[in-house]
Amino acid sequence: MSGDLGPRVAISAAQKFLHLYPDVDLFLVGDQEQLQQTLQGANPRINFIHATEVITMDDDPLTALRHKKNSSMWKSLELLRDESADACVSAGNTGALLAIAKYLIKTFPGIERPAICKSMPVSSGVTYLLDLGANIDVSPELLHQFALMGSALAKAFGADQPRVSLLNIGTEAYKGTDILRQAQELLQQDASLNYAGFIEANCIFSGEVDVIVCDGFHGNIALKASEGVAQFIANKISAEFDRHPIKRLLALLCWPMLKHLRAQLNPAQYNGASFLGLQKTVIKSHGSADENAFVHALAVAREQVLLRVPERIHHQFSH
Amino acid sequence: MSGDLGPRVAISAAQKFLHLYPDVDLFLVGDQEQLQQTLQGANPRINFIHATEVITMDDDPLTALRHKKNSSMWKSLELLRDESADACVSAGNTGALLAIAKYLIKTFPGIERPAICKSMPVSSGVTYLLDLGANIDVSPELLHQFALMGSALAKAFGADQPRVSLLNIGTEAYKGTDILRQAQELLQQDASLNYAGFIEANCIFSGEVDVIVCDGFHGNIALKASEGVAQFIANKISAEFDRHPIKRLLALLCWPMLKHLRAQLNPAQYNGASFLGLQKTVIKSHGSADENAFVHALAVAREQVLLRVPERIHHQFSH
Repeated sequence: MSGDLGPRVAISAAQKFLHLYPDVDLFLVGDQEQLQQTLQGANPRINFIHATEVITMDDDPLTALRHKKNSSMWKSLELLRDESADACVSAGNTGALLAIAKYLIKTFPGIERPAICKSMPVSSGVTYLLDLGANIDVSPELLHQFALMGSALAKAFGADQPRVSLLNIGTEAYKGTDILRQAQELLQQDASLNYAGFIEANCIFSGEVDVIVCDGFHGNIALKASEGVAQFIANKISAEFDRHPIKRLLALLCWPMLKHLRAQLNPAQYNGASFLGLQKTVIKSHGSADENAFVHALAVAREQVLLRVPERIHHQFSH
Repeated sequence: MSGDLGPRVAISAAQKFLHLYPDVDLFLVGDQEQLQQTLQGANPRINFIHATEVITMDDDPLTALRHKKNSSMWKSLELLRDESADACVSAGNTGALLAIAKYLIKTFPGIERPAICKSMPVSSGVTYLLDLGANIDVSPELLHQFALMGSALAKAFGADQPRVSLLNIGTEAYKGTDILRQAQELLQQDASLNYAGFIEANCIFSGEVDVIVCDGFHGNIALKASEGVAQFIANKISAEFDRHPIKRLLALLCWPMLKHLRAQLNPAQYNGASFLGLQKTVIKSHGSADENAFVHALAVAREQVLLRVPERIHHQFSH
């Protein structure tokens, strides 16, 4: 019901997603009348759950947690708690989704707090970056937990001995904050991790490591600065092709190439951030996600359920 | 003498710089014999100052400060302290340059610590981002000082009432850390500043504001993540044009356009970070700067001397 674009995008994405993946059924949670009108026609694989309230993007997470038990977000997460659904995907208020998921789904024993994790495109595939904003104040122990969760996720997606790094402003052991230096000691001592040392932000996209661990403030800045500069460059390229009739002709000739390039750099194909550490799969779609981006977030949820990512994280912590 | 590429780049840049700007004389500080050999031929506008030591990229800043008083870096900064030179440009060890500059040149009264500041390309011109790594632990008062210094710099370069923002992970007043919220109050209360609220990292390149203030860890991550993603995209574009003979032909047709685009995105044209708050102009060139990038750093130094940037910062603090 929420997100910057409302339920229309979610519903068209849901239809496309069901078409692509015949092994999935969906619940659509929200104002049932509005959802059914938008859907146009019944689909036996879509179930409706009515919810009278909506958590808006401006709602304070704690207020939402305390007072919006009839919201579509709350009802969706209840389906996970009650074992009726395997995963929840939302484009709504991140803080509220995190707070309610933590309350209803809970983290596994030994996991202090969930972390937001996203796969970043790198030359050799993807690198998992966490935390992206759930935890601003972190202890060395919490960063260690993020490393274990990220490593379990990378293993689920095929990395044999995932290389794990801590994001810092230099690679020398004396660089950074006390918290980072202490976290480095914990990671070095943990034989279940393949720790690769500190990494600087210019190497996030180099593919040197599989998992990059940081606090939520640093991860958020790294992710958003990257989005900003990618947008800036895309605008420059468009402007460059638009400067002269001959260049616009060249743009036509280059069209297939530009399209391929755009597809590779398209943020939509990286949409869908995981809340790692929870006992079920909860995926946050970007608030401004379009249909394809939302489909990708749904596909991430499906894949993490099939690969049993929550169970693998639990397993990593029980050793 | 230092930098990743040694004195060769600095010297060829010096010659090009003198050719471009007839109003400048240069001191070259270092191993005089080596420098003169590299220079090949005398230039009456180049003076040599001999130094027997070099501070390396691996030297610990405090050790360099205590024990390398005969280094080229120390001798260069002595020229500023003794009023023999107006500005110092170095591609060497950032931490050592900062520590020695702080010791020899000093900050203006009322300025606690210098900040590293760089101009970032944005759609409407440039935005000044500070601090970029000199200060990891900051107080609200120190962020306030960075705002005043950045604002004075932007005014020197023509902004009438520079819009100043604090980098945060959201724009709402409750977002971020206590330090940021307290800094926001200080900036709101300061009538000499045109404070524009919190800004997120994806808007660094949007040109919404003239100055963005943050601690050195956050600034470093934002800057380096941006460099990393720009490099990643450049590699993707090259690979795309290289995929097929027809595409390589297209690349030839697009060559003038790609060249123009590259010139606009070229990090060399943004090389030269300022150490704001010092009583003289000290500019840090990127360790891996090539000739053109080094020339740009020298040009930044010249411009800041002509625009009397240190004096303007002093003035901003005396009101």
